[in-house]
Amino acid sequence: MDAVTDLKRPREEDDNAAAAKPACFSSVIPGWFSEMSPMWPGEAHSLKVEKVLFQGKSDYQDVIVFQSATYGKVLVLDGVIQLTERDECAYQEMITHLPLCSIPNPKKVLVIGGGDGGVLREVARHPSVEHIDMCEIDKMVVDVSKQFFPNVAIGFEDPRVNLVIGDGVAFLKNAAQGSYDAVIVDSSDPIGPAKELFEKPFFQSVARALRPGGVVCTQAESLWLHMDIIEDIVSNCRDIFKGSVNYAWTSVPTYPRHWGYWIYALSSKSNGPLKFYNSEIHSAAFCLPSFATKVIESKAT
Amino acid sequence: MDAVTDLKRPREEDDNAAAAKPACFSSVIPGWFSEMSPMWPGEAHSLKVEKVLFQGKSDYQDVIVFQSATYGKVLVLDGVIQLTERDECAYQEMITHLPLCSIPNPKKVLVIGGGDGGVLREVARHPSVEHIDMCEIDKMVVDVSKQFFPNVAIGFEDPRVNLVIGDGVAFLKNAAQGSYDAVIVDSSDPIGPAKELFEKPFFQSVARALRPGGVVCTQAESLWLHMDIIEDIVSNCRDIFKGSVNYAWTSVPTYPRHWGYWIYALSSKSNGPLKFYNSEIHSAAFCLPSFATKVIESKAT
Repeated sequence: MDAVTDLKRPREEDDNAAAAKPACFSSVIPGWFSEMSPMWPGEAHSLKVEKVLFQGKSDYQDVIVFQSATYGKVLVLDGVIQLTERDECAYQEMITHLPLCSIPNPKKVLVIGGGDGGVLREVARHPSVEHIDMCEIDKMVVDVSKQFFPNVAIGFEDPRVNLVIGDGVAFLKNAAQGSYDAVIVDSSDPIGPAKELFEKPFFQSVARALRPGGVVCTQAESLWLHMDIIEDIVSNCRDIFKGSVNYAWTSVPTYPRHWGYWIYALSSKSNGPLKFYNSEIHSAAFCLPSFATKVIESKAT
Repeated sequence: MDAVTDLKRPREEDDNAAAAKPACFSSVIPGWFSEMSPMWPGEAHSLKVEKVLFQGKSDYQDVIVFQSATYGKVLVLDGVIQLTERDECAYQEMITHLPLCSIPNPKKVLVIGGGDGGVLREVARHPSVEHIDMCEIDKMVVDVSKQFFPNVAIGFEDPRVNLVIGDGVAFLKNAAQGSYDAVIVDSSDPIGPAKELFEKPFFQSVARALRPGGVVCTQAESLWLHMDIIEDIVSNCRDIFKGSVNYAWTSVPTYPRHWGYWIYALSSKSNGPLKFYNSEIHSAAFCLPSFATKVIESKAT
């Protein structure tokens, strides 16, 4: 299926398009987008909408792009904000450079998810990298990003990138053993299409595909809201990865209460002219509030 | 005026109380509280309301307390969340221990604002402290906190505390020169009653009241949203304080996009069994994203 053929811009004169507006636009402040999810019950974050630029339904999820009043263009999957032009640097730079600056001269990198291309843009800053595989399940995300977020999708233009549209779980199972220096899992939440990316068998596949001393970094939810999920992931990873397992955090204003990442194996190195990431904030990202340290350290074997 | 006499619990059977609900409850998701402000245009954060526990109007501001679905009890001043039971530890611990752990043996501390008592609770953990003056402009905030947030207002019970209900700007002007080891400014936003606490004359008064080598820490808004305000404050403070001026941040989920603090003079020391603060996160709080470092360093003289 070529998802590009499904791309439709809602025309303002089209009554049907207006009537078909998803619940996230109508159940809340009129003219605003509100993000609500069972992942963060009892709270919502809302952005004022200037114009809906795209609405589509892929084989996997609802895809929306809108122009916000104060955060630039916004990409929404299944009602959840994935990136805004204003703050995407915080997420993309941190999830990429935390792992890649933790090992010397990464050469072969695998990105699971990340269909907007932002992680690719950041991986491409590393001159040691020779080959980047990306496995994204939803081609519509790639197409929409190329159309509406050229400064993010620029990552796809790097000649080292090999884009595969498919299931990341299956891709990893078939990957050659010990073939990657780094795996970056840029997934959505553990409900919906990304669910398996938070489960033990997936991490076992990652461990198999990594070379000894390789590093994995994955989106690992918020320490304010999802300590139970984080506890399970850390526990699984301590079983599977024989090096260190750490939880790190960053500040992404439009994500619900900070998302975090964790990482296996690290050192320290700075890189390039970036907006957000630097070597100091690399180290700072691993300094956790005491309530989180207590839970995460309790999983140390 | 004794604000306690104004305390009214809205009775559910009282139609007038329902009709008098402030705009933040009615203009948004029915049954939810939404925080909107010209300080963060185009975005809103909403919490599901279980029950409104208190609504009052003091001489200075609207005061609301509600039971939220997932963040415990919430204190709201002029439509802006000041604290929730779930995450107040992050704010109170950081704004207090960042400055007090930066100087050896603080003895005399002044808190401007902070009428909920949480900063007092944290200051009281420091055994070297002999005397704590607090100047809060709004007695209703103190009374409401004592009634609904006993674990926060516990700070008022410390015998070293001298509570003054009055204007912090005037209080500081009359303070003896060089009399405080530390001043903590726990204010609301620079619109409304706290406006003057962000202006140069106020910081000049703070500098006068501090002993040489003393430290000030103040709420200094979000580096994602208010870089212009932060730039002004840093610039003013570099003029006034002859030691170091730093900007630090922390994560408070229910504050719009992280608030930050800055601080004058620092070292490093850990303290007590806390939920959030530790010596590592003390240092990490001063590691800023590159875009913020660029602006703040440009003010270095």
